[in-house]
Amino acid sequence: MTSDIRTQGIKNPIDVAEYLFRRLHEVGVRSIHGLPGDYNLVALDYIPKVGLHWVGNCNELNAGYAADGYARVKGISAIVTTFGVGELSAVNAIAGAYSEYVPIVHIVGTPTTAAQKNGMLLHHTLGNGDFNVFAKMSKEISCAVAMLDDPYEAATLIDHTISECILKSRPVYIALPTDIVQKKVDGDRLKTPLDLSYPPNEEEREDYVVEVVLKYLQAARNPVILVDACSIRHRALEETHAFIEKSGIPVFVAPMGKGAVDETLPNYGGVYAGDGSNAGVRERVESSDLVLSIGAIKSDFNTAGFTYRVSQLNTIDFHSYGIKVRYSEYPGVRMNTVLSKITARLGQLNIESGPNPNNVIPEAEIKSPEPTITQAWFWPRLGQWLQKDDIVITETGTANFGIWETRFPANVTAISQVLWGSIGYATGACQGAALAAKDLGQLTSRRTILFTGDGSFQLTAQELSTMIRNKLNPIIFIICNNGYTIERFIHGWEDAYNDIQDWKYKDLPAAFGAEKGEVLTYRVSSKQEVEQLFADKEFASAETTRLRFVELVMPWDDAPKALIETAQSAAKRNAEVS
Amino acid sequence: MTSDIRTQGIKNPIDVAEYLFRRLHEVGVRSIHGLPGDYNLVALDYIPKVGLHWVGNCNELNAGYAADGYARVKGISAIVTTFGVGELSAVNAIAGAYSEYVPIVHIVGTPTTAAQKNGMLLHHTLGNGDFNVFAKMSKEISCAVAMLDDPYEAATLIDHTISECILKSRPVYIALPTDIVQKKVDGDRLKTPLDLSYPPNEEEREDYVVEVVLKYLQAARNPVILVDACSIRHRALEETHAFIEKSGIPVFVAPMGKGAVDETLPNYGGVYAGDGSNAGVRERVESSDLVLSIGAIKSDFNTAGFTYRVSQLNTIDFHSYGIKVRYSEYPGVRMNTVLSKITARLGQLNIESGPNPNNVIPEAEIKSPEPTITQAWFWPRLGQWLQKDDIVITETGTANFGIWETRFPANVTAISQVLWGSIGYATGACQGAALAAKDLGQLTSRRTILFTGDGSFQLTAQELSTMIRNKLNPIIFIICNNGYTIERFIHGWEDAYNDIQDWKYKDLPAAFGAEKGEVLTYRVSSKQEVEQLFADKEFASAETTRLRFVELVMPWDDAPKALIETAQSAAKRNAEVS
Repeated sequence: MTSDIRTQGIKNPIDVAEYLFRRLHEVGVRSIHGLPGDYNLVALDYIPKVGLHWVGNCNELNAGYAADGYARVKGISAIVTTFGVGELSAVNAIAGAYSEYVPIVHIVGTPTTAAQKNGMLLHHTLGNGDFNVFAKMSKEISCAVAMLDDPYEAATLIDHTISECILKSRPVYIALPTDIVQKKVDGDRLKTPLDLSYPPNEEEREDYVVEVVLKYLQAARNPVILVDACSIRHRALEETHAFIEKSGIPVFVAPMGKGAVDETLPNYGGVYAGDGSNAGVRERVESSDLVLSIGAIKSDFNTAGFTYRVSQLNTIDFHSYGIKVRYSEYPGVRMNTVLSKITARLGQLNIESGPNPNNVIPEAEIKSPEPTITQAWFWPRLGQWLQKDDIVITETGTANFGIWETRFPANVTAISQVLWGSIGYATGACQGAALAAKDLGQLTSRRTILFTGDGSFQLTAQELSTMIRNKLNPIIFIICNNGYTIERFIHGWEDAYNDIQDWKYKDLPAAFGAEKGEVLTYRVSSKQEVEQLFADKEFASAETTRLRFVELVMPWDDAPKALIETAQSAAKRNAEVS
Repeated sequence: MTSDIRTQGIKNPIDVAEYLFRRLHEVGVRSIHGLPGDYNLVALDYIPKVGLHWVGNCNELNAGYAADGYARVKGISAIVTTFGVGELSAVNAIAGAYSEYVPIVHIVGTPTTAAQKNGMLLHHTLGNGDFNVFAKMSKEISCAVAMLDDPYEAATLIDHTISECILKSRPVYIALPTDIVQKKVDGDRLKTPLDLSYPPNEEEREDYVVEVVLKYLQAARNPVILVDACSIRHRALEETHAFIEKSGIPVFVAPMGKGAVDETLPNYGGVYAGDGSNAGVRERVESSDLVLSIGAIKSDFNTAGFTYRVSQLNTIDFHSYGIKVRYSEYPGVRMNTVLSKITARLGQLNIESGPNPNNVIPEAEIKSPEPTITQAWFWPRLGQWLQKDDIVITETGTANFGIWETRFPANVTAISQVLWGSIGYATGACQGAALAAKDLGQLTSRRTILFTGDGSFQLTAQELSTMIRNKLNPIIFIICNNGYTIERFIHGWEDAYNDIQDWKYKDLPAAFGAEKGEVLTYRVSSKQEVEQLFADKEFASAETTRLRFVELVMPWDDAPKALIETAQSAAKRNAEVS
């Protein structure tokens, strides 16, 4: 459409926006999240053109959360917002993805380069002629920022930014001015796929580390493996699994590492989180003389309030950015190939078996005549009902602590935001995760199951509308327990600020435009009703194409054990005198 | 609770949080918007203690918009969020308030000073030990930032920050660590109210400017006054009104200045916005030999796409930060007292009367046999129905362009976000505005009326729940026209990205927990039904304590004239070749 003297010689010219969306398609994106806005409209025209699907979210924060959920299932995602108002609404979601290492390409449609240069007083600006302020804010929560204000550099910047997004597993920010959308770049570049391989470790250095690790491992009396989030986020699951299976060493997961390990393995031992650990796990892990820690993030909520009690003297840390053996550091040595080499050269190991968690319901719960659905009863019961390949999303609060007590079938993908912990996240993430499953051709072979609280659901409720609009079929549980339970356990037990408005949740799907019969709704308030629900084939089947929406009524003053311990620790820290 | 050697000698010690909330009460805040979060819970305990009301919003963006609406009615507002996740969700709303000069005190509950110093790996962090990153982001959209990490300075910082908020009429940011909440400050400071008076202009300088202005004014053949947003936001309405009434000069408003001027005055001439002006206004303003421009913000959407055509050679600009007479600048001379002196010394003026807009419905509309509710019909018809003292909130898009054609009764407060233009804003702002009216004792004497689009409403729909929870009684019109109409007029006329999910809007109040009869719902899709609705006493009366919720069905492809012109101009600018 427009021409530039520097790009006139291009043999196979294509528009910048087309190039960008084709690259996204190449790396696995099939749906684009976001909202239209006048600075991105022309770019949106390219989405169907390159075979991508436009989601059309209800707001940008929800779109950001959805993109996060999509990326955790599909490997990467993209969101398009408009300058200022749109991008800033998504900032919290992008910060969460930065915090938790989730690769999202955030594309922001901006005013023309000419308007920016002239500092025009446009809508969606602060009125001060500063067009860089929002990008500056996003820079804090992006691993790369590209301002596509020159078509000559656009393709290079796009390639670099998308590669960084994947390799660093963090959000990137691409500003696309409206006048650049249709500028020409060299389409032949697309014939060469992006190089997304990790730079190899320096061999001599890597072998040295492997030897050191093996020395300690073979000398250990009762080693354990502890797997955490970064093994998932930095793509070391294959190597981790090979190591676990071949070695037979008892393996535990940190809460953020739930789903990283096949929990049906005979050497799977349960969740380790200090005082919040599964039964028997704390004793086993803390008495080990060698903890092989893979991808750890030792945050408060991931360690039940820093009650992690493993000495660094007994620890080997495997990370994407380096290895640490006791206090000896090996920066720049990525874990993946180190793990593979260790697995290949294991030698003779001393294995002392660990606990073997199951979904057995506690005795007291079985004997109790109370029909109430307790936390202690529900989460192991859920574990019995889950299926292979399920995607399980748990909101910060009751659900993501409760899930510690659920042992998963094989190949479950668990999604929760333990470190960033933004309530409202899970509902958005559920939309993205369910859509990713659909884009993978698994709409009727894999269930996406959300557990969120009533308080949390209210923040992002309209994402239910987006799920209906996109014909998604997740199973949604709203834990109806009258408010912000995790906050009550920290402070304000019966204070009004932890209450919420009492919604008729079940009426929302219809209000959000679901046709009659398009969404199945349920309300369960006793154990028996849960049993009936779980036994209901239409409800439980992965093949059901309809969205299922459940009000799960639980007592307001009940919480999972791990939540109570973590909340008490948080309350104590908040009250600490400086 | 805790003590510090430097504060042991205080005679009347009170806790930092109490001091903060008492100061907010002093400057006019009566309700606090926001959400609980574990880093702000202890601070929330002080809200009822000092006689303030906790709103309990559904999410932080909505809370921010609501705080904006509250401040536009009550003069100032406050919002409490939690570190990271909460504050970032509100960033877009705060940026809007910064852009549009709305004073909001944003209080963020943060981790303890000790945890921050130690760089602990806490939830709601980026996991990198950087606790300043969010404050840094907020600094870009705040006129003052206070980190209350030392009780010794806390009271001084609080006083300074609240004063800056009011004097600069922009958001401020206060970080309140959990361990500082109960630290002691000198309560006797509260006996001296904050000094919120504007520093006086230098007298000789001011008089000089007044003389210059009067010289041009008295020499002018046909002067006009043009009033814009900053006359409202920088509190010059009283002086502006005195000048208008005493001088009798024809007065016009820019779109962002709607509501600044009593539109029943005989010299009120209508909306000036270049090509988007009311009938006859453009000719009158642009042929004037002297435009007295008060508080102008000449943004694209405020000038129908920069079609403002008044020469600076014919202009005198009055601002909070200075006066500009043709090209002569007088920085640092605030408009308020300059206007008062001019009014006092007017002398002989040449007044040539201007047009006199009214709410007469265009001939073609009256004659049309079509029952459809057209934009051209609706907005003047609305003007006939509005009442003195109404608060009228119009969303960016159809409503805030449509309202240009509505002539207001006296003392109407108009709220819209013309410069920042974030869709979803109006629904949140409606909650805040209605609550401000309630806090002013006007719950049943003043109507709060919202006009939003279906697309826009979906972004922040759950704020309806907060209105119900807080027993507010606004009148809400959802313009049901199937999507993002303003975007269609810019680009993508029938493209799917400008469509939205079709909600059953009327079913939402009940789903959001309204008791039977607590909310009155309506659907009108013909002119006749609008007439019936307007004539319905229970619907129309300010005394009705129930919330009223209307689906106002209008054609998807119709838009107010001014919107069409502005959108065309935006589309053209977006396509401009750089």
